[in-house]
Amino acid sequence: MVGIAVLGCGRIGRMHAANVAAHPNAVLAGVYDIDAGAAAAVGAALGVTPAGAVGEIFASPDVDAVLIATATPTHADYIEMAVAAGKAVLCEKPIDLDLGRVERCRSAIAGSGVPVQIGFNRRFDPGHRAARDAVAAGEIGDLHQVVITSRDPGMPPRSYYEVAGGLFRDMTIHDFDLARFMLGDEPVEVFAVGGRLIDPGLMAELDDHDTAMIVMRTADGKQCHINNSRTAVYGYDQRVELLGTTGMVVSGNRKAHEATRYSARVTEAAAPYQFFFVERYAEAFRAEIDAFVACVEAWAEPQVGFEDGRRALILAEAAYRSLATGRMVRVDEVE
Amino acid sequence: MVGIAVLGCGRIGRMHAANVAAHPNAVLAGVYDIDAGAAAAVGAALGVTPAGAVGEIFASPDVDAVLIATATPTHADYIEMAVAAGKAVLCEKPIDLDLGRVERCRSAIAGSGVPVQIGFNRRFDPGHRAARDAVAAGEIGDLHQVVITSRDPGMPPRSYYEVAGGLFRDMTIHDFDLARFMLGDEPVEVFAVGGRLIDPGLMAELDDHDTAMIVMRTADGKQCHINNSRTAVYGYDQRVELLGTTGMVVSGNRKAHEATRYSARVTEAAAPYQFFFVERYAEAFRAEIDAFVACVEAWAEPQVGFEDGRRALILAEAAYRSLATGRMVRVDEVE
Amino acid sequence: MVGIAVLGCGRIGRMHAANVAAHPNAVLAGVYDIDAGAAAAVGAALGVTPAGAVGEIFASPDVDAVLIATATPTHADYIEMAVAAGKAVLCEKPIDLDLGRVERCRSAIAGSGVPVQIGFNRRFDPGHRAARDAVAAGEIGDLHQVVITSRDPGMPPRSYYEVAGGLFRDMTIHDFDLARFMLGDEPVEVFAVGGRLIDPGLMAELDDHDTAMIVMRTADGKQCHINNSRTAVYGYDQRVELLGTTGMVVSGNRKAHEATRYSARVTEAAAPYQFFFVERYAEAFRAEIDAFVACVEAWAEPQVGFEDGRRALILAEAAYRSLATGRMVRVDEVE
Amino acid sequence: MVGIAVLGCGRIGRMHAANVAAHPNAVLAGVYDIDAGAAAAVGAALGVTPAGAVGEIFASPDVDAVLIATATPTHADYIEMAVAAGKAVLCEKPIDLDLGRVERCRSAIAGSGVPVQIGFNRRFDPGHRAARDAVAAGEIGDLHQVVITSRDPGMPPRSYYEVAGGLFRDMTIHDFDLARFMLGDEPVEVFAVGGRLIDPGLMAELDDHDTAMIVMRTADGKQCHINNSRTAVYGYDQRVELLGTTGMVVSGNRKAHEATRYSARVTEAAAPYQFFFVERYAEAFRAEIDAFVACVEAWAEPQVGFEDGRRALILAEAAYRSLATGRMVRVDEVE
Repeated sequence: MVGIAVLGCGRIGRMHAANVAAHPNAVLAGVYDIDAGAAAAVGAALGVTPAGAVGEIFASPDVDAVLIATATPTHADYIEMAVAAGKAVLCEKPIDLDLGRVERCRSAIAGSGVPVQIGFNRRFDPGHRAARDAVAAGEIGDLHQVVITSRDPGMPPRSYYEVAGGLFRDMTIHDFDLARFMLGDEPVEVFAVGGRLIDPGLMAELDDHDTAMIVMRTADGKQCHINNSRTAVYGYDQRVELLGTTGMVVSGNRKAHEATRYSARVTEAAAPYQFFFVERYAEAFRAEIDAFVACVEAWAEPQVGFEDGRRALILAEAAYRSLATGRMVRVDEVE
Repeated sequence: MVGIAVLGCGRIGRMHAANVAAHPNAVLAGVYDIDAGAAAAVGAALGVTPAGAVGEIFASPDVDAVLIATATPTHADYIEMAVAAGKAVLCEKPIDLDLGRVERCRSAIAGSGVPVQIGFNRRFDPGHRAARDAVAAGEIGDLHQVVITSRDPGMPPRSYYEVAGGLFRDMTIHDFDLARFMLGDEPVEVFAVGGRLIDPGLMAELDDHDTAMIVMRTADGKQCHINNSRTAVYGYDQRVELLGTTGMVVSGNRKAHEATRYSARVTEAAAPYQFFFVERYAEAFRAEIDAFVACVEAWAEPQVGFEDGRRALILAEAAYRSLATGRMVRVDEVE
Repeated sequence: MVGIAVLGCGRIGRMHAANVAAHPNAVLAGVYDIDAGAAAAVGAALGVTPAGAVGEIFASPDVDAVLIATATPTHADYIEMAVAAGKAVLCEKPIDLDLGRVERCRSAIAGSGVPVQIGFNRRFDPGHRAARDAVAAGEIGDLHQVVITSRDPGMPPRSYYEVAGGLFRDMTIHDFDLARFMLGDEPVEVFAVGGRLIDPGLMAELDDHDTAMIVMRTADGKQCHINNSRTAVYGYDQRVELLGTTGMVVSGNRKAHEATRYSARVTEAAAPYQFFFVERYAEAFRAEIDAFVACVEAWAEPQVGFEDGRRALILAEAAYRSLATGRMVRVDEVE
Repeated sequence: MVGIAVLGCGRIGRMHAANVAAHPNAVLAGVYDIDAGAAAAVGAALGVTPAGAVGEIFASPDVDAVLIATATPTHADYIEMAVAAGKAVLCEKPIDLDLGRVERCRSAIAGSGVPVQIGFNRRFDPGHRAARDAVAAGEIGDLHQVVITSRDPGMPPRSYYEVAGGLFRDMTIHDFDLARFMLGDEPVEVFAVGGRLIDPGLMAELDDHDTAMIVMRTADGKQCHINNSRTAVYGYDQRVELLGTTGMVVSGNRKAHEATRYSARVTEAAAPYQFFFVERYAEAFRAEIDAFVACVEAWAEPQVGFEDGRRALILAEAAYRSLATGRMVRVDEVE
C-alpha cells in the first residue's frame, strides 16, 4: 500500500483525497490545508487526522508521496520540499506561472530520482486515451492534423481570474499538453489570437482573454488547432480530432445519461454535456491516481512528468509572444 | 428505351410519372386518370398527351409497360388487362383488399410470362438494402430477431380510411413485405394487437385501428416484431433492426439535413425526420423504377413480384384473425 | 448513519457492499455468506468482520437494514427473518421463483411497517429515469407504445440456467418491472413467444429459452413490446423507447468512452456497449443504494416495493401461460 | 420560363445542365463546349442542339442567362461577353486566379444591372443554410467562433493541380466564402499555414500545398478557423460549427444511407460520407439553380454576387501573404 498525503483541500483536493482513499493500493496518509477547517472537514469525511503544519506531512514515515493541490504559487516550493524529503509528487498544473521559477525548480530536483508527476488528467481520459492508442497502433496512418476543442461551460468568478495567470497558462495549458500527447511530437511553432468577447470589460481590465484560437506546427509539418472559449452553455466541451492518411479518430463528449427526445421540432436531442471537469473527467482523475500509485510502487518515471509541465508552459509563453507580435512564434525563442 | 405509361395521376402517380420521365432508359409513354384534369396536368408538366380512355394505353404500341397507381379496387382489373395486352406491370400495393380477388387475378395471369412487379418501394431503400445485404453477406451470422418500427407522421383524413381497407392491409402491408424481405424467409405464425388510441371515435366507427403491435415467427424460429402508429409527430419513422449471432444491423431514419443544435438544455438536437414517403423514400422510388426498367428490358422476373403482393396480404389476413381470436394464428389457416 | 449488512458475497453482493461502504450516509454493518471464505474476502477489503452465522446479522444492534444478495431460494426466508427482526430490507430479484411462496411471504410481513425494497436497479438508471420523468412531465403527451430492448452480451454458464428459473423469471423479470415503471400502469394482458436459437440443445434439455418477444397491453390500451436475447455480441443492450401523442423519448446504451473511428469503410464507429450490468448500471446501483438509505432513514415506503416484485413475477407467470397456450393471457388468470 | 445556356460540358457543366433541364421554371436553351463532342453528348442526352460557337449562345434570343462552367481562364471573358449581351450569369468559382483581372472584369460590368451570380454552392446546402438561419434568428446569441472543416476525399490528378491556381484559390476559396456567409461579417485579418504532407514531392514541385490551417478575425473580434486536407479517406468532410453566447449549431456530413453496424468490436458504425461534391452537395446545386432562376425572373441582385467572388479571392491572397510572411495579414493590405 502506498501512503499518499493530499496538500490542499479545496474542490480538486477533496476529489483527489476521496480517490486516493478509495484506491485499493493506496492509503490516504495525511491531509493539509492552510485553512485548518478545510483540512478538518476532509479528514473527518475520510477518517484521517489533518496535519497541523505542512512539515508534518513531509516528515511522516507513513507518507510515501504527496499530491499537491494547493494554490499555484506554492507548487514549486512544495515540489522541492517533497523531493528533498524523498516523497514522490503528483502536482496539479501549472508548476508555476513563471517559467524562470519552473527552471529553478527543475534544477533543484535534478538527479533526485524521485518521481514527479504533473496533473494533466486529460491524458488519462478513456476516450482521449483510446484515440491516442488508435494513432499509435497505426489505425489512421500518418497523423496530419489535430483539432482540439476545449471550452469551459461558463465564466469563473473574477477572483479566479486574478490569480489564474491568464487564459493560456490556466486553461489552454491543458490543451498544450494534450496537443503534445496527441501529436506524439513537439510543436516548434505557435500562432495565437485571443479575444475579449464574453466579458470585454473584465478581460480588458485584467489584460486577459476569454476566447482564443491557436495553430501549432511540428518540425515535420503536422498541424494542430486549439479553440478555447469560457462559455459553452451546452456543457464542458472537450473534443479531440485526429486526421491521418488512412482515417480519423475523434474523442467526443460525455453526457450524464443517454436519453434523447423527439418532438415536432427536433429529433435525437440529447442531454447537455457533463458540466465540468470533476464530472467530465471523473474516470480520468481516477486513472491518474491509478497511474501515480503504480509509479510510486515502482519508483519509476511517471507517464506525465515535470518536463511535460514545463513544456506546456513554454507553449503558453510562445502563445503570449504570438499575441503580442501577430506572428507565428518559434518555440525556441521563448525557451 | 422502355415506354412506360402511368395509370392514376394522384400524388403517387405524379411522382412515379416524373421519375419515369427522368429515367435515362425510360420514356413516359402515356398518362391516364379517371379525372381528365389530373391527367392533363401531369401530361402538360411532362410533355405527354394524356389518354382519353384507359384502353388507348393498353392498345398503344409505344407502351411496353404500365405503372398502376389508380384506386385500389381497379388494380386487379388493370393488371389483368395489361397482362392480356402483353404489357409489363408495376402495380402499387395492395393488389386488392380481398384475397379471393387476388387469387382470381393470379389465375388469370398465370403462365403469361409477363413481368408483374408490386410497388413495395421499401425494398429499394438504400439503408434497408444495405442492412439486408449485410445479413445476406453473413455479417451478423444467423439472423434471430427482426424489429420493424413503422409509424406515419400523422393521421390521414377520414376519406382515406374509408377506402384504405384497414390498418393491416393499408399500412402494415408494407411492413409485412419488409419482414419477409429482411427475414429471407416466410413467417408461419402471426400475432397482433390493435389499438384505437389516437382517434378512438373514428377508429371505432370505421372498425379500424391506429396503433398496433405484431409478433411473427418463421418455421425455424426467427422472431419478428412490427410496431405501427399513425402519429409520430417527429416525422415518418421507418426503422429496421436485425439481430444475429455475431452482430446487429440497423437501418435508421433520414433527415432533410444534418444541422444539429446545442443549448443549455439539449445537445446534438437534429431536424425532424423526413416527413412522409415521398421524401423519405425518394431514392427508393427511383431505384424501384430503375429495377422495373431493367426487368422490362430483360422481360424477366421482377425483384418483387405478384406472389410477394399476395403473401403480404395473407399476413394481413392472419393478423386480422389474430385480432379476432386473441391467439397466434398459423398463416396456413388463412391461405 | 444507516447500518446495512450484506447477505451474500457473490459478484453482486460484493458490488453492493462496496457501494454501501462508500455511501456518505451508510455504514457497512456486516457481511455474511454461506461460504465463509467469500465473506472473509469482502470483509477484509472493506474493513468489516464477517458474521459467522446469519443470525448474528439479524441480532446485531448495529444493523438497521439488510441487503439480500444470496441465492434465490433463500430470499423469502431472509425477508421474513429480517422483517421479524425489524430490519429494513433491500432484496435482489426475484423474491422467489414460486408465486405461492411469494404470497406466503407477503402474508408473513403484512402490516409490519418495515420497509422492503426490491432490487429492480434499472428504475434508478439516469437515462431510464430521465425518460420516465419526461413522460410524467407530459413531454410526449399521452403514452401509446413502449418498446424495451433487453439483451445480454452472452450466454451464462449451464450452472446458472439450472437455478435461474427460466428466461422470464430470471431475465425478463427486470423488463416486466421496467414496463410497469414506464407505462405508469398495469399490463392486463400478456402474449409471449420464446425461442431456442442460440443453444437449442441446452435450452431444450432445460426447457428454457434464449430468445423471446413479448407484447403486453394495459386496460386503457397502451401497448408494450419487450424483446430479449442472451447474445448481443456488441454489448449489453438496454434500451427503452416511449412513443406518445406529442413526441418520443428513448433511453439508449452507454459506452466505456466516446471515441469514434473513421476509415474508408466506416464513419462514426463507436466502442462496444458497456459489457454487463455491473458496468452498464453502475450509476443505477449506486442510486438504488441512495434511495434505500433515504427510505431506511425515513422508515418509509420504498420507491420499488415488495408488491412490485410480486407483480413482475405475475407477469412472468402470464408469459409462461401464453407460451403454453399460444394466446394472449389475461393477467388476472394467473394472480 | 427562363432560358439558360450552359457553357462548358465537363463534369460540373453536365450536372448543371441536367439540373437546369429538370427545373420547372427553366429551359436548357443551349450548351457549348470547346470540345464539340462533349457538347454533343450533353445536348443529345438533354434534347438540346449544341452551339457551334460560343457567340451563338450570346446572340440567341432564347437565352436569358448563361451558366459558365468552362475552364477558369475563360470565366472573366465570358462574364463580360454575357453582360454585354444582356444575359444574366451564373459563373463557377473562381472568377479568375488573378485579382487584377477580377478588378478589370468588375469595372467592365459595373452599372450594367445584369445579375451575376457566383457558384458558391455551399451557401445553398440545407444543413449549412439551417445553421446560418439559426444564427440569424438569434438562436445562439452573439456568434463568437466559426470552425470550418473542409477536406476532399482524395488527391486530384497532377493535371488538375497544374491549372487550379493553388490550394487557397481552388479549394479554400469555398471555405473563405462560407466563412463570410457564416460570420455575417468580413474577416479583416488572415493567418495561414500550409503543409505538404500527402504528396510532398508533387506539392514542392508545383509550389502548392495539400494540408492547411487558417485563422481569421473580424473587426469586432469574431474568430474563424478553417482546416483543409486533400485526403479524408472516410469521404468528403464538410462541417461547419458555430459557437455563440447561448448555444452552438453544427452542420454535419451526409451519408448515402443510414444503416449502421454493430459487432463485437464496434457499435453504430455508419457508412462513409458521401464521396464528393456532386453527391454531397446535390441538393445545394439544385437550390443554387433555383435561386438563380428566381434572380433572373426578377432581374434582381443574386444572393451570391460578383463581389462575393472577389472578396473570397482577396482572402485567398491574404492567406498567401500570410504563408509568405509567417504573420497575421490585414486583409486591406492585399485589396
